[in-house]
Order: sequence, then structure tokens, then C-alpha cells
Amino acid sequence: MALELWWGSGSPYSWRALLALEYKQLPYESHLVQFANQEHKSPQMLQMNPRGRVPVLKDGDYVCFESLAIVQYLDRKYPERPLFGHNAEETGTIVRVISEYQSYVEDHIKKIIYAVLFQGVEGHQDEITRAIHIVATEAKTIENRLSQSSWVVGEEFSAADLVIYPGIQTLLRALERREAQELRGRLLPLEEKYPGLAAWSKRIEALPGYARTYPPHWRE
Amino acid sequence: MALELWWGSGSPYSWRALLALEYKQLPYESHLVQFANQEHKSPQMLQMNPRGRVPVLKDGDYVCFESLAIVQYLDRKYPERPLFGHNAEETGTIVRVISEYQSYVEDHIKKIIYAVLFQGVEGHQDEITRAIHIVATEAKTIENRLSQSSWVVGEEFSAADLVIYPGIQTLLRALERREAQELRGRLLPLEEKYPGLAAWSKRIEALPGYARTYPPHWRE
Repeated sequence: MALELWWGSGSPYSWRALLALEYKQLPYESHLVQFANQEHKSPQMLQMNPRGRVPVLKDGDYVCFESLAIVQYLDRKYPERPLFGHNAEETGTIVRVISEYQSYVEDHIKKIIYAVLFQGVEGHQDEITRAIHIVATEAKTIENRLSQSSWVVGEEFSAADLVIYPGIQTLLRALERREAQELRGRLLPLEEKYPGLAAWSKRIEALPGYARTYPPHWRE
Repeated sequence: MALELWWGSGSPYSWRALLALEYKQLPYESHLVQFANQEHKSPQMLQMNPRGRVPVLKDGDYVCFESLAIVQYLDRKYPERPLFGHNAEETGTIVRVISEYQSYVEDHIKKIIYAVLFQGVEGHQDEITRAIHIVATEAKTIENRLSQSSWVVGEEFSAADLVIYPGIQTLLRALERREAQELRGRLLPLEEKYPGLAAWSKRIEALPGYARTYPPHWRE
């Protein structure tokens, strides 16, 4: 039976699952869920994931959700083109870099995006400045990794790349907004401040199937 | 060369790594780091983990940190007594439950513990009440899982158990404090409100080697 993926446009978590499927060159049925119509909270979706969140993967009778779980499931089920390295040491380092991103970066990126898109930056200046400062520092750490290797961990695309890339793209997109004009100087232009990250983004965008992972509403 | 683990007493992340090593019955050299003496920020520790955090695992020349990365490294390097299941479906579900705990529970547990131990509950009543409410709801979800199986995922101890257990124990310990007397009624007594969780805790405490994982300063 075919793999099926339910995903939402602009959700960095969905993007991870799409990148994993495309990188592994697995055929899948793609179900783009319309957030605006609350389709992720439909009875069918809630039956698969009671939290009503995407991405959700179905493989025959087996249902999986939470982006990292989907990626780990796919990697064990379809081991070709591994996403967690070729040995225990590579696995450990890939998971370590993912954990660091989740523990020390992701919440700050979310805070900045939330402020720019919804809450407004004014009145939260100190908090946002602090978040930008942390993101800039952590981006330097990733930049250092990318000055030594083509991918975030080593010389092959891995789960570390597909976890981090969508979050960074979502942040960069938010920083294009007029509301973010005073914030963006800390991180942009990317090519000047983080040339390694910029070149790495281009490498990801050159992966076969990348176009199918790009959030459709971002093209509009 | 022997495995070595640097860990801190009362750190739930350290506890995960200890549980993994003991469950897998791997011999290791144990280095208890004294937080009070800032030993986790010593030059030796910073060389292994620039963030100055424990746990840190060393296996020959290979160094790994971040608790989940340590657990995944150990499971791939030493596959006996697997912690991520016997097939892709079990792996997917174990990682899914871990991701859910990390995304929807852990921050709220931390908030409660921080309020009880450091910040004070007064003046943050709404925030803490909301956190307790979320933790109580999520605990019911885990309770439901444990009414259907002996362990959080299925009939074998897994990484899901060792990730969740230390966080819950740390919360329960904080709730024993006098400062928490108005909060604890929502979750305690555990045996009455969450009999499945209480029985599961006893099963974990009966695992061989458990005593070596218990935070030493909690015995004082």
C-alpha cells in the first residue's frame, strides 16, 4: 500500500516529513491540509492524531505523527539513503545536533516569528532582542559546522539538515515583513553574515524533489 | 576502552542516560559531577561539551551529549536489549511518544518545578494553575497507555519510559515541598489519581541497577 502524508503549507514540521520522503525517493500520496478551513481538526484527522496536528504519515495500517517520529520511522523502514548516518557515532552526533536545535534555538525562532506575524514587536522589544541574540549566536555555531563540512553533520545530507532548514527558512521569511525591518539587520543579508548557511540552503534547494516540498502558499 | 558517563544528581537528563546504561547492562565508569562546585563548567567538561551541560558520554574517543543522543547512540552501538523497539513501527511510536512528552509536557513540568523551588508560586498563580492543568491532562493520556500495556509503549521497557520517568519523579519530589501544598492535590496521591503511573513507577524501580541511577542527594 502507498505511503500517505497529510501536511500543511508553511508548517516547518510538515516540511521535514516532505524532505525525508523526497530525499529517500519514496512514492507517496500527498494530502495538502488547508489550515484556513480547519481541515487538520476534521474527524478523519483527529482519528489519526487526536492532537489535530500535521504532519501525519500513514503506511498501510500504521499511522505515525510528530515530525521526528515520522523521519525515524521512515529511516528504519526504508534504510536506503540513510538519514541518521552509517554508524552509531554518526547517529549520536546527528541526534545531538537535532536536540541542541530543539532545546536551545527553536523556541526563540518561534518567539520571533510569533512577534512579527501576530503579536507585534513593539512592547516586547527586550524579549525579542534577546531571542534574536540567541538565534544569531546559535546560527554562528551552525555556520562553523558548515565551514568544515557540506552538511550540518558530515558529508551527507541527514536528519539534522531537514530538521533545521525549515525553521530557518520560516524565520527568514518572517524577517522579510515590514514589521521586522529593525530586527533583520542582525541576521541578514545571509550571504554576508552567514555565507556557509547561505550556500547550504542552496544545496538543499538543489536536491531532487525539493520543489514539491516548498510551501505552496509562499509562491503566491 | 570503557564507557564513561559524567552526570549530575537530580538532573532528569542525566537520569535518562544512567537508566539506558543500566538497562543495557553496560559497564561504565561513573563520574558524578558536583553542580554546587560548578564542576560541569570545568575546562575538561567544556572541552567535551561547550555548553557545560551533563550528561556527557565518552566511549573510547567518541564524545556524545544531549540525553536523547546518548540513548540513541548506545542503542545503535550496543543493540542488545533494544530501547527503540524491534521494528520500524515500534521505533516510530516510541519516538512519537517521546516527542509528544517533549513538545507538550516537559516545559510545563519545568515551569512548576521552577516556581516551587526558586521563583515562588505566589504572583504566578494563573500560569502555574494552567501548567498543572496541562500536566494533569497529559498524565491522563499516559495513564491510558499504561492501562493497556505494562510500559509506556508496549510490553517492553523502552526509551519512552526512560525519557518520561525522571521528569515525573522530579515533579513529584518538588510537589512534596511545603510551598507546593496547594498545588499537589491536582496530581496526588498518585496511587489514587493515576494508579497506572504509580504501578509503572514501581516496575521501573524494580529494574536491576535502578538504585545506581537514583539521585544520591535525594537520599540525604
